[in-house]
Amino acid sequence: MIQKIHHVGVAVHSLDEALKFYGIIMGLPMQLQRELPDQGVRAARLTIGDSDIELLEPLSAESPVGRFLKSRGEGLHHICLQTDDIEGEMETLKSKGVALIDDEPREGLVGRVCFLHPNANGRVLVELAQP
Amino acid sequence: MIQKIHHVGVAVHSLDEALKFYGIIMGLPMQLQRELPDQGVRAARLTIGDSDIELLEPLSAESPVGRFLKSRGEGLHHICLQTDDIEGEMETLKSKGVALIDDEPREGLVGRVCFLHPNANGRVLVELAQP
Repeated sequence: MIQKIHHVGVAVHSLDEALKFYGIIMGLPMQLQRELPDQGVRAARLTIGDSDIELLEPLSAESPVGRFLKSRGEGLHHICLQTDDIEGEMETLKSKGVALIDDEPREGLVGRVCFLHPNANGRVLVELAQP
Repeated sequence: MIQKIHHVGVAVHSLDEALKFYGIIMGLPMQLQRELPDQGVRAARLTIGDSDIELLEPLSAESPVGRFLKSRGEGLHHICLQTDDIEGEMETLKSKGVALIDDEPREGLVGRVCFLHPNANGRVLVELAQP
């Protein structure tokens, strides 16, 4: 079952610049800031109610977020939906013909995650996460 | 005070197609579906936890969502943050040099709303709403 919006991911050129807006100006509390070399990003997460804003700065132009910035520019990057049964959701999606990027759940920053293929869904990159 | 993500807005070519994904496949319950001529959209809202997904299909190519689709294609369009004091938030933002699209709160689908200028913030269109 889909429980909530876990976070909304935002691609940015500069984490420091973005944190001025979300942290200092909007006053959202920082939850964590970390470099994730396997995902090619420096990430920061800020709390907003029961959800988060995840800021993603690419470590290189060839990383997925780097390529996103080159083709689409800064902006909203993905939406992550929390589930209590990621395998079950993935099976249901596959049975309904939805293309997944990940065949199996993998370990992400927030627990076990998988990405749906954005072509399955009007170019919205959807992540599922089971914390 | 910013309380939560009220909704995430998604620009789509076809509400019916998008509802197949979010409603039928993902199983999110529909909250409302309505044509909003003053905003140039047909909108649907689906509930996800304490937040919503708002699907926006333009009524014409010249509407704001129509122009977004033409320049950026389908995808995540805006994020709406709920506040309990929209005038106070707007004053704070102005005092911190953040450009607003709306000088005053206006009546939106969900209550009193205003939009921040996306250039203020890495091309993320942020809406504030006080239901």
